[in-house]
Amino acid sequence: MLRIRSVPSTQRIFKRFNSTLPPTLSQLFKNPPVDRDLTINGYVRSVRSYKKVSFLDLSDGSTHESLMCVLQPGQAVDLKTGQSVSLQGKWVQSRGKEQAYEFKTHPQESSVKIIGDVPETYPLQKKLHTLQYLRTLPTLRWRTSYLSSILRFRSFVDFKLNEFFQSRDFTKVNPPIITSSDCEGAGELFQVESRNAELGKEPFFGKNAYLTVSTQLHLELLAASLGNVWTLSPVFRAESSDTNRHLSEFWMLEAEISFVDEVEQITKFTEDMIKSVLKDLVNDTNGVASNLLSSQRRTDDFEQMNAKLKQRWDNLYNKSWDSITYDKAIQTLQESGVEFKIPVDYNDGLATEHEKWLASHFGGPLFVTDYPKDIKPFYMKLNKDGKTVGCFDLIVPDVGEIIGGSLREHDLLRLEQEISKRDMKVDELKWYTSLRENGSVPHGGFGLGFERLICYLTGVENVRDVVPLPRAHDECQA
Amino acid sequence: MLRIRSVPSTQRIFKRFNSTLPPTLSQLFKNPPVDRDLTINGYVRSVRSYKKVSFLDLSDGSTHESLMCVLQPGQAVDLKTGQSVSLQGKWVQSRGKEQAYEFKTHPQESSVKIIGDVPETYPLQKKLHTLQYLRTLPTLRWRTSYLSSILRFRSFVDFKLNEFFQSRDFTKVNPPIITSSDCEGAGELFQVESRNAELGKEPFFGKNAYLTVSTQLHLELLAASLGNVWTLSPVFRAESSDTNRHLSEFWMLEAEISFVDEVEQITKFTEDMIKSVLKDLVNDTNGVASNLLSSQRRTDDFEQMNAKLKQRWDNLYNKSWDSITYDKAIQTLQESGVEFKIPVDYNDGLATEHEKWLASHFGGPLFVTDYPKDIKPFYMKLNKDGKTVGCFDLIVPDVGEIIGGSLREHDLLRLEQEISKRDMKVDELKWYTSLRENGSVPHGGFGLGFERLICYLTGVENVRDVVPLPRAHDECQA
Repeated sequence: MLRIRSVPSTQRIFKRFNSTLPPTLSQLFKNPPVDRDLTINGYVRSVRSYKKVSFLDLSDGSTHESLMCVLQPGQAVDLKTGQSVSLQGKWVQSRGKEQAYEFKTHPQESSVKIIGDVPETYPLQKKLHTLQYLRTLPTLRWRTSYLSSILRFRSFVDFKLNEFFQSRDFTKVNPPIITSSDCEGAGELFQVESRNAELGKEPFFGKNAYLTVSTQLHLELLAASLGNVWTLSPVFRAESSDTNRHLSEFWMLEAEISFVDEVEQITKFTEDMIKSVLKDLVNDTNGVASNLLSSQRRTDDFEQMNAKLKQRWDNLYNKSWDSITYDKAIQTLQESGVEFKIPVDYNDGLATEHEKWLASHFGGPLFVTDYPKDIKPFYMKLNKDGKTVGCFDLIVPDVGEIIGGSLREHDLLRLEQEISKRDMKVDELKWYTSLRENGSVPHGGFGLGFERLICYLTGVENVRDVVPLPRAHDECQA
Repeated sequence: MLRIRSVPSTQRIFKRFNSTLPPTLSQLFKNPPVDRDLTINGYVRSVRSYKKVSFLDLSDGSTHESLMCVLQPGQAVDLKTGQSVSLQGKWVQSRGKEQAYEFKTHPQESSVKIIGDVPETYPLQKKLHTLQYLRTLPTLRWRTSYLSSILRFRSFVDFKLNEFFQSRDFTKVNPPIITSSDCEGAGELFQVESRNAELGKEPFFGKNAYLTVSTQLHLELLAASLGNVWTLSPVFRAESSDTNRHLSEFWMLEAEISFVDEVEQITKFTEDMIKSVLKDLVNDTNGVASNLLSSQRRTDDFEQMNAKLKQRWDNLYNKSWDSITYDKAIQTLQESGVEFKIPVDYNDGLATEHEKWLASHFGGPLFVTDYPKDIKPFYMKLNKDGKTVGCFDLIVPDVGEIIGGSLREHDLLRLEQEISKRDMKVDELKWYTSLRENGSVPHGGFGLGFERLICYLTGVENVRDVVPLPRAHDECQA
């Protein structure tokens, strides 16, 4: 069989798609070139050969759907799962029930060409691999039907969020990744220095520099200029905890809103934001939901999982989300009679198991507001009671917290007191506190863990399975 | 005058905007609440007081337009540029010619409230400051009409690009920021380590880790799984060169396309991409162009600058972009008779001054293709001549290069030869080269310097004026 190094021209079909790029399977399925001769490129997902005919499942990563190709048995002898191939033939209506279309290759042997071969040991054979095993194949795992759907879904959510903020007249901004301030005061920072720096010499930036743990402080600066701002930006934590919820590098959606002074204004806004994504899921607009569901892993509990996921979306979309105070949350936990691994204590905040239980107890997403000030960061606005701050966490069943937000303290004196009390350096935050002396306004905002949202919406349990190349302690593959 | 700490409720008007957030001036201008009583929040841009009336220019950062407010002189006595204020009054049709609407405050003194004061030394008075001076005010400069327009424009371009890739069925991905490989082999890397790491102990990630200089290699991995992918991601270079074109941290739009084997397929695609942004500029959709032009700095050559900018957009949008080979570019430069500061030499590539001259000579954007292989990175695909590679740079007048792209070498042997020849470590790139053994396909892609594109489209000369908090050598303010 011929091995080729270039892709046969598909010029004739390009015009329909108004592009110089060859059409993807996703584009072809949406705009099917029925009864037309064309060249199709893709990867062999599987081959089955019978006496008179061979069937090839072709995919190209653009959709979970594969194209059923009908070959002469002689054309299929060298074909193996994983190879990239180029096929010449005709796109026809299928007589089978499984799919609407199939692709019949022309009878000549040369109509089927292998573009790129795979070794005999190519690991992604047509069987169900565990997600854990797939994580050991960082360069190949995104070729599986399930995991590639997750990344396409992530891309969809990203776009929907862009649309939402655009419709609400927010300005998208890019706050710095390298920073000299430690936003949370948590200390789990990565330090950054030029590789060519000489020991003991002046640092590259003239001072110590770190990777941002949150863009919030810089967003506040920008909100004070542009009104309402948002970003979707990588943030970093040098955490050693090895859980399925934590990464050292993850993406955070953060927004900062001017002229708000009620926590409820922000919680309602985040509810609208997430519902704007859910709307397309619940209505299955453009097949978003059905694509995701039909690419779910064919495990034994496959149908149960899908039913659970659909129920989750419906529930999220159709109900009005509950909100309780932290006081009430603690009381509910204490009165539950449940024996938690970590005891419930007012001064300790909520552990993940408490959050999960509470969210389940309330039957859906739950805002918990007004935490005690001493367990929250310095920038949160003190409530009138002098004990709690105007803040909220959004907690959901199975996952726990996915959003944290607050009103920001805009009183300079109180802000400086809180900074000093936490042994943070007032000087290093001078640029930030100076915003309170220059036309400060009541404002607030929130941060959404983007990977956690994707996990929640897809039912994926490990955050490593929604990010292309996860980075964590002792984990930096490829 | 009353100093308040909370924002008066604007509940009544919220409903029109279907939001729990107070409407911004931008939203109000689009959907004007004529003859309605309401509360408006914003910043004092300027105040002029006469005997019987005071005029206040109010802005809130959401649009370059300010709202002309008509006050009783007594209400204006304490007002100063920069303060944040809350005004109660009525939105009315304006009798003046300068603006369509104005806001008449109610006569009571309490209808005008200062929310946040400014010090006497507040530097942003109503006069034209140089951009250089404004750079010394990192926390305040984005409040100026001109610079805030630039960030709003950046946000618009970001959204348009999201729309473009969505319409072309690309998957948006987030490749890692922290990486153990050195994509370009250029060596100007930032190293990353946990601040709490102990000297001589195992590194946090189990190996040396750096900030990515380009996401391309990881994008290739993802393109081999998902077909066509793109990202808009921060990238980093530990360059010490202090120019108005370079930053240590900047945003790069990168895309990787499967099943292409002609450079022209990619150049045409990038032309379509940039024209998709220009379309709204040239047609002034939603006032994108007029907003930008009317917020231009009122320098003496203001009108000339605007005319030049409009001509640039028209030219970019309406003409088909030229393409020449590198050979031809060198020949054109040599035959030009121009005495360049840096002499033209085939083996040295193009200097920025050469690029600018060439683009001007061709009267617009120009693709230069097929550079000699020895001056380009290891991953570019060798042409049939054995001397040049299938690559391109997009160069534009005044700015120089804004896009670089190529077909990628998908022949494993050639790729490994190029890696070795450049003294790079074949082992460290094993994950990348392994893609060529596992169903490799002809593919290519490009990288667009996002800040450079914004500079070119807005006429901004210094890249520091299109990014909120610029990071460069010895430069890490706020």
